[in-house]
Order: sequence, then structure tokens, then C-alpha cells
Amino acid sequence: MSTDFTPASSLSHAELEEGAVLAPRFDSQGLVTAIAQDAHSLRVLMLAHMNAEALRLTLETGIAHYFSRSRGKIWKKGESSGELQKVVELRLDCDQDAVLMLVEPQGRGAACHTGRVSCFYRIAGVDDHGRFALADDGEAPLFDPAEVYGG
Amino acid sequence: MSTDFTPASSLSHAELEEGAVLAPRFDSQGLVTAIAQDAHSLRVLMLAHMNAEALRLTLETGIAHYFSRSRGKIWKKGESSGELQKVVELRLDCDQDAVLMLVEPQGRGAACHTGRVSCFYRIAGVDDHGRFALADDGEAPLFDPAEVYGG
Repeated sequence: MSTDFTPASSLSHAELEEGAVLAPRFDSQGLVTAIAQDAHSLRVLMLAHMNAEALRLTLETGIAHYFSRSRGKIWKKGESSGELQKVVELRLDCDQDAVLMLVEPQGRGAACHTGRVSCFYRIAGVDDHGRFALADDGEAPLFDPAEVYGG
Repeated sequence: MSTDFTPASSLSHAELEEGAVLAPRFDSQGLVTAIAQDAHSLRVLMLAHMNAEALRLTLETGIAHYFSRSRGKIWKKGESSGELQKVVELRLDCDQDAVLMLVEPQGRGAACHTGRVSCFYRIAGVDDHGRFALADDGEAPLFDPAEVYGG
């Protein structure tokens, strides 16, 4: 299997948006944005980034791989925590700069490093002083990150 | 209501991730990533970006506003097409650089400029030659973009 993606710049606008060629439109850092959505509950679990290698590894292995911007390297999600994500389906958006994966979380089922199922655990609203604020949705973490990641 | 967000850099790591202060972590272009998810079907509809003003307008009006990177300005989605998104709930992720909205699509219910319900209409796979490829999911567009946008 070829491991190179077609450069998005080599396609016409119509080919990019309506065609069958996978030509991810990587940004100036070489990244596309990736959403992981639970294949069964349809909850959005997390948002991260992929470079070409991470996308290729994800497609080839069926296990979600990202690119860690903070560590500057490939991040096989769950490699240390056991919270792997099995990819059921992977879609590209219209202009091919975003990836949507339907995943089956493995391990305890926590996508977030805080031990929660989803990274999106706080809801925006307005507090008693009329200021924007966040409220935790109250769902308990599935594990204590200090125990899993060594604090 | 205050229209300024607390700078993320003024918070501790614990405050950023577990606190009640809405302190979006805008990137070097002043943007956070935003996902729109249908509040009822839970389909992921689109991914775009928000600057501080777009996020503030979204929170204040309950209608999704983005920042168009190509046009360099605020983008009230659906202003010309009628495909507004009513925001039912808005969440921030653990490190506050991503937004997840549950929305009720207005108009014809097409989030994508191609006239489709969702921008994620193509599924990645492998073609007969062993190359990565995309396959349209076959769902018909709800409108002809040439008629709506004068394309």
C-alpha cells in the first residue's frame, strides 16, 4: 500500500470536495484536526490533531493515532493508559482538513487524560455576576489520573 | 455582561482544566476550534473556528458564529443561506482550546456549503489498487449550492 497521500494542491476545487482521492489538506504545521466520536453513544469524546504519519497509521492499523503538538511526536492514544480507540469509520470533511472518526473506546473507556469519558465535561453559561462561566456536568471520572499517569 | 474572556495564561493548570472560569485558550491566530453536533441526531455536522468575538456572539445570541479564516472576518453561519444554527448547549474541552456545540439546524438543515446535512460525507477506505481513497456516503444534498450561493 502506498503510504503517501496525494497533495491537496494538485486537485481542483471540485476534485477536492467531491472526488474519491484522499488528499488531506494539512496546515502550515502539517496537521489536520481530528474528532473522535463514540461509535455507539455518538458522544464526541475529544479533539486532537494528526500529521500524515498519524493519519496513515490510523488507517493502516485501525487504531487512532494522533500527533502530540506539545511533545512533537506521534501519539498512539492509550499506549500507556490502555485507553486505545478502535476506529470503526473515518471520514473527511468537504475541504479535507478535518477528520471524523467513529471509535470504540478500549480499556476503561476514558478518552480524557482527566479520567473522564469525554474531554467536553464543562458547559458554558453565565454566573451570578453576569460573567461567562463553566459548570462541570457532574459525570464522575472513570479513573484517577494520578494513579494511571503517575501524577 | 463582561465581553472579555479571562486570559487562559492567568490560570493554573488545575484551574484551567477543573475550574469554573471560562478562559478559552486561543492559538497564535486567536482561534479555538469549534465542532457543531446536531442536538437531536447527534451527527457531527461541521468543524470550524472561532475567535473571541465569534465565541462571545455565540454565547450572547444563542446562534453559532464562527471566524472565517479564508475571508478574515466573523461568519454568522446561515446569514446568507438561511442555514442558521441555534445553539442548545456549548461545552469547552479540558484544556479550553476546543468548543463543542449541540445545535438545532434551521432552514433546510444543511450545515455544509455543498448542500449536505454534514460536511463529513466521505468515508476513507482502500480502492482496488490498494490506495487510500474516499467513498461518498450516498446521502443526497438538500439543496443545489449553485442556486443558494449563486455559484
